[in-house]
Amino acid sequence: MAVSPLAPAAFPALPVIDGVRFAAVAAGVRYKNRTDVMLAEVAAGSTVAGVFTRSATRSAPVLDCQEKNGGASDGRAAFLVNSGNSNAFTGKAGMTSVAAITDGVARVLGIAPARVFTSSTGVIGEPLPHERIVTALESLRDTLSDDGIEAAARAIMTTDTFPKGAAAEITVNGKTVKIAGIAKGSGMIAPDMATMLVYIFTDAQIGHTPLQSLLSRLTDRTFNCITVDSDTSTSDTLLMAATGASGVDVSDNADFAAALEKVMLDLALQVVRDGEGATKFVTIHVTGAANDADARKVAMATANSPLVKTAIAGEDANWGRVVMAVGKSGAEADRDRLSIRFGNITVAREGWRAPDYSEEAASAYMKQQELEIGIDLGIGTGTSTVWTCDLTHGYIDINADYRS
Amino acid sequence: MAVSPLAPAAFPALPVIDGVRFAAVAAGVRYKNRTDVMLAEVAAGSTVAGVFTRSATRSAPVLDCQEKNGGASDGRAAFLVNSGNSNAFTGKAGMTSVAAITDGVARVLGIAPARVFTSSTGVIGEPLPHERIVTALESLRDTLSDDGIEAAARAIMTTDTFPKGAAAEITVNGKTVKIAGIAKGSGMIAPDMATMLVYIFTDAQIGHTPLQSLLSRLTDRTFNCITVDSDTSTSDTLLMAATGASGVDVSDNADFAAALEKVMLDLALQVVRDGEGATKFVTIHVTGAANDADARKVAMATANSPLVKTAIAGEDANWGRVVMAVGKSGAEADRDRLSIRFGNITVAREGWRAPDYSEEAASAYMKQQELEIGIDLGIGTGTSTVWTCDLTHGYIDINADYRS
Repeated sequence: MAVSPLAPAAFPALPVIDGVRFAAVAAGVRYKNRTDVMLAEVAAGSTVAGVFTRSATRSAPVLDCQEKNGGASDGRAAFLVNSGNSNAFTGKAGMTSVAAITDGVARVLGIAPARVFTSSTGVIGEPLPHERIVTALESLRDTLSDDGIEAAARAIMTTDTFPKGAAAEITVNGKTVKIAGIAKGSGMIAPDMATMLVYIFTDAQIGHTPLQSLLSRLTDRTFNCITVDSDTSTSDTLLMAATGASGVDVSDNADFAAALEKVMLDLALQVVRDGEGATKFVTIHVTGAANDADARKVAMATANSPLVKTAIAGEDANWGRVVMAVGKSGAEADRDRLSIRFGNITVAREGWRAPDYSEEAASAYMKQQELEIGIDLGIGTGTSTVWTCDLTHGYIDINADYRS
Repeated sequence: MAVSPLAPAAFPALPVIDGVRFAAVAAGVRYKNRTDVMLAEVAAGSTVAGVFTRSATRSAPVLDCQEKNGGASDGRAAFLVNSGNSNAFTGKAGMTSVAAITDGVARVLGIAPARVFTSSTGVIGEPLPHERIVTALESLRDTLSDDGIEAAARAIMTTDTFPKGAAAEITVNGKTVKIAGIAKGSGMIAPDMATMLVYIFTDAQIGHTPLQSLLSRLTDRTFNCITVDSDTSTSDTLLMAATGASGVDVSDNADFAAALEKVMLDLALQVVRDGEGATKFVTIHVTGAANDADARKVAMATANSPLVKTAIAGEDANWGRVVMAVGKSGAEADRDRLSIRFGNITVAREGWRAPDYSEEAASAYMKQQELEIGIDLGIGTGTSTVWTCDLTHGYIDINADYRS
């Protein structure tokens, strides 16, 4: 599959996080001739926290991770992820597969099974051939290296057209703290807690409770603000490990929170940039709503509207469809106070087409690859920003004949 | 545009409704070389009732109809409908256009402006050139005829590929009561009160209050149970006139309610059959939910899921995406009680792929043009049925370059 036109030029240079090693292998879970399993090992004393999908049909690995999250934090830990099969809706056999893998990882690494977190992504409803993964575990262990993060990012891809990574560094009292993260996601993206699969590592020192609280808060402003197609995965998982190797306590550090948010938003936007069939990257910025919840309703209704998304694909400045989306959102709105802009071009103001509206100028703007739609409801101070992509023939191509 | 593959063979033979006359004309509102305005005149003593979109950005004609609905019911009444321009989000000029048209109709027919109900459908946000309609009013009046209903159905089409009509007759105490209705709708279909434009006529005798209450109740079981693309129109309108010419009082008549529901459902399903780009007609039947509201959440989440709709377009028996939709719906669900069937083929049972699942049989079923997806949540007695279509390249073609 061709790389998304919205992809970054290259995978970013991610810093080595002291205390974390990666390996990837081709286990043949479903795909041929590519890596499909990654292992990350984090050092003793690391803190692990995570956020997970709220789907009522979430996968066996998600259920297992949720049970383990918040458990004992001493001893080494591991993340094991496979692509090609999501081990979702696989009944009791699903948990048997999770147990086989976690027990296997625990055995080859010499750690407690309760410290092994697994994720699976790919087709729903087919039994996971876990023995192919278990067979590959010794090879994974023997190839763990501190610079294997890009290979890990590649091994977890499904319909993704590029691997996704992001990093940040801050300095605290003269000491450097590093954050590096990877993600996968392209379709079935309308996260309801975290998106698809995201793994973030830092050498900062932080306890489970403050890390969990920080992750949950930042997820709501990053991964929960993106949508490709309004469909929510059964496997959405964000796991983070803090090794403490930098010796810097960041429990109440605003710089660390800002740096982590930057990494999370970077990864979230890369998922949008790899949206199935996407040719346009769209920021929807809502202001003047009665409250933030109403602003978010309007932003999401617009971002998920098939008519708005196809107009964007067709480079048609069809702002009437934005009016429609505002109307159906359920948010409080007053036609005569509503203004809409495409970039800096005001297309509608106070309930009607802007007096100086130029179809030519608006159409020219729509030809850009990165678009911003501004919606001001003129009622209150509520705001929301969400990110999405267009709906194209490519999305139909990918999903009408590819069983992901 | 080619006629939808799901279209009925022909426009049905609709009975003449005593007391109702129709006319259609090419006024050149936006389209060339076709009719684009219809007029229906209903006799003195008729009852008129309607249901309308709940969109917060509803059109000027909808606002005007809502104000008039329930008003005085003596004297003749008229419905005037144009296609090509929705007169939505047109500020104060929108109501000026409505007033110009209603005053014009009142003048040429010699009736009260409060008894003239108008609708407009088409592009949003452009001023309605109402003078083109006003100019055509005398010609419309002079061509009113009691068998003009099919011409009226054609005049209100936009992206529709066929005109939509339905009829029913019942016998009460040896007397015949007739119902005839027409509708338009193809995209921006996820009615939140009534769908697009629907006009129903009967010679039954019934007061405004019982007719309004019946219409609202039946709308919830018919037009509010269809979705093409999850987008809700700013113009959705259903208007009904009962002339009383049959002399049969149907105020509490269950046969009449059943006949009217049949007509409404027939029209609603014709809208789905003309869904933009549709190649498959899909019934989604949810049972075993905690309550009816939960069942509806699951049915609508499935019917509106782009991934479910593209799988259907691709004739892929990808029931994992149905599991995903159940999970994201927000309804109470228990993976281990969930069963899914495609037609009579059980594909999933009790949280896993059905033991006797045959990919071959399921794939063969998906090749049919009319599909049924059954979802049993296994929790309670809540049920819901909704109707939808697939999401195809045709939808992208129509909406990425057509400003409807």
